[in-house]
Amino acid sequence: MENLLVIQSGGPTAVINSSLAGVIRCCFERKREIGKVYGGRNGIEGVENERIVSLDLFENEENLRLLKQTPSSYLGSCRMRLPDFTEDTKPYEKLLSVLEKYKIGCLCCIGGNDSMDTVNKLNTYVSAVGKALKVVGIPKTVDNDLALTDHSPGYGSAAKFVANSMRQLALDTDVYEMPSAVIVEAMGRNAGWLTAASALANNRDFSAADIICLPETVFDSERFLEKVQAVARVKKTVMIAVSEGIKNKNGEYFKTENQDLTKRNDKFGHAALGGAGKAVETLVAQSLGIKTRCIELSTLQRCFSVQASLCDVEEAFLAGYKGAEFAIDGKSGIMAGFKRTSDNPYNVEIAAFPVNQVANFEKKLPMDMITDDGFGVTEKFIDYASPLIAGEPELIYKNGRLSFAPFI
Amino acid sequence: MENLLVIQSGGPTAVINSSLAGVIRCCFERKREIGKVYGGRNGIEGVENERIVSLDLFENEENLRLLKQTPSSYLGSCRMRLPDFTEDTKPYEKLLSVLEKYKIGCLCCIGGNDSMDTVNKLNTYVSAVGKALKVVGIPKTVDNDLALTDHSPGYGSAAKFVANSMRQLALDTDVYEMPSAVIVEAMGRNAGWLTAASALANNRDFSAADIICLPETVFDSERFLEKVQAVARVKKTVMIAVSEGIKNKNGEYFKTENQDLTKRNDKFGHAALGGAGKAVETLVAQSLGIKTRCIELSTLQRCFSVQASLCDVEEAFLAGYKGAEFAIDGKSGIMAGFKRTSDNPYNVEIAAFPVNQVANFEKKLPMDMITDDGFGVTEKFIDYASPLIAGEPELIYKNGRLSFAPFI
Repeated sequence: MENLLVIQSGGPTAVINSSLAGVIRCCFERKREIGKVYGGRNGIEGVENERIVSLDLFENEENLRLLKQTPSSYLGSCRMRLPDFTEDTKPYEKLLSVLEKYKIGCLCCIGGNDSMDTVNKLNTYVSAVGKALKVVGIPKTVDNDLALTDHSPGYGSAAKFVANSMRQLALDTDVYEMPSAVIVEAMGRNAGWLTAASALANNRDFSAADIICLPETVFDSERFLEKVQAVARVKKTVMIAVSEGIKNKNGEYFKTENQDLTKRNDKFGHAALGGAGKAVETLVAQSLGIKTRCIELSTLQRCFSVQASLCDVEEAFLAGYKGAEFAIDGKSGIMAGFKRTSDNPYNVEIAAFPVNQVANFEKKLPMDMITDDGFGVTEKFIDYASPLIAGEPELIYKNGRLSFAPFI
Repeated sequence: MENLLVIQSGGPTAVINSSLAGVIRCCFERKREIGKVYGGRNGIEGVENERIVSLDLFENEENLRLLKQTPSSYLGSCRMRLPDFTEDTKPYEKLLSVLEKYKIGCLCCIGGNDSMDTVNKLNTYVSAVGKALKVVGIPKTVDNDLALTDHSPGYGSAAKFVANSMRQLALDTDVYEMPSAVIVEAMGRNAGWLTAASALANNRDFSAADIICLPETVFDSERFLEKVQAVARVKKTVMIAVSEGIKNKNGEYFKTENQDLTKRNDKFGHAALGGAGKAVETLVAQSLGIKTRCIELSTLQRCFSVQASLCDVEEAFLAGYKGAEFAIDGKSGIMAGFKRTSDNPYNVEIAAFPVNQVANFEKKLPMDMITDDGFGVTEKFIDYASPLIAGEPELIYKNGRLSFAPFI
């Protein structure tokens, strides 16, 4: 009987391990069709080096439950990119030899854009060389920028962290009588989904995100300062959410003078950002002379399982489960994603999307979710994102410490 | 019948409003002895300006429950410092005229060191001029630096946020195979209690705080880098917790070159810090050449009610309740604090401490809670702090958003 191998790659999220739990559960439930479920450490990089582990410890229900609430990639991650196989087949041959050794018939890859590129290339290669391996992608990204799927697991929990952080910070900031501005920097190089989630902090009688600066719009300092002044005239505390990837009209990242972004590119050519919030803080402080504070939500926003959304945890599990099921049922070159059938009541269906239409695209916030002045989001976004942050999972703590799955 | 006035001052915490709820509840329960319960907005500054509000809306149990989980100072805060009354009686006379107008017989002040200074001065003044006003302090500080009391409400929740953030960040950081160091900056100008709480993230098979840099010890760059190297030899990811207030052997704050601290003093003469983490990050990156990341836990650590400790929420309520009771029973010039009677099982008793022995002292981490090399904490600290982060309150959310008490 053939086995299934699951790997994780890209940046961690609060629920990527819930997807892993879903894959594992599916394999255990379909033992007549699939043999063992293996995990590959550090993505395809680890597979190449035969760093394959058994996941049998998760037959234990308690361990599986702990896995669902363990943030970050349990199996580790990598940022290795496969070459085009028409140019270099070596990494492919190496991978396939390891997969054959472990009798892997199904490979599930939980990850974001770059991981879907890997799924796509690997699937294209095995089709071309006539191998029977099934390769399936399971979406994961706090950036929510994967194409075709309505949304991606990981986003809901990160969005919830952003929204509730804004709410709590707005109260924290408002205690003194002095006018002030708080700049909160959220993740999202090119897609503003996570920064937009700050708007979920607002309700009828409480504004916790007054101005939202997105990478989809041009960051015009003058218009921005006018907006800050307009808010400051009616509100003591100006709460500003800023995407790490805001850009000026020339398409350059908005930054303070002494930042050199060129040195900090990762293997995929993405700039490692940081500092947009500080740059905006400096701008506000220098121009308006009010008290300012910049808060970077940092990697906490992607790994804070304490603030996970139940919807997200359950959907991540489902995507993992269904992804494994697709592979076991013979599908390949697809990603298990979501089709939304209704906003209210919220309802989604799992669908198999062709991964070659997902890989290397970035789904940005559409213009009809951004207000005309570019500094806010529309009701359409609120309706879209609200269900994704709903519900709180029952978490297991031990003496105040969040419990994690046992390490292997 | 006389009334009670409650005010809040100093920096916000996750549970300062639980103390407010305790004061309010006590007043409602002792209606035969106390008339109305009023809140003063923005501490004594608001009282001077007669910004007094009724707190009757909290007779509603649901509102009171929401108040307990609302972070930050519901009534607002101030940083006003009373002068010595032998030099200037005007602010005292102004305050007393307002208090007399509202027939205030009891004043409860929820706050930290500076607030206890206010309680002390006001109590000394009313004694000197023969007024019957009872003035009682209720402790609140994430810094845990108030004297006499075993610990202060606010600390347990902030400590829990620090510990669980370290745990989640350690997992987040560990996903790649590349060696790296993460520097996490926690609050605490002169007292390392909150930075020390990072050690609560560790357990037998998981080290999430490898090196802890406290303001109580001298920060010696060379010895620190040796320690980092020693950890890096045995562990891929070096997790470092740094207090915002670490100092070199000359007692100067450790900082990067371009920071000018002198411009950022508050009204009490405290330096507004920030940047110790970044300075340590630069040091590590330049000296060891490994990947580094600095994460400032920022004001999130003091206002993140989502991660509150049940022990802290309940004790904050109790301190508020008992503080009001002390005042109603005729005590004045005291602070309602805790005496620990046992670590295991954890047990405390409420006690009335003389506020003149609390005001303007800073309780630092004692040397027997710090390891000999200065880069860690002892079991004594773990035994002390563990019970304070225990338990999770049942929080009320609405569609994924943490609910707050209605605004007045």
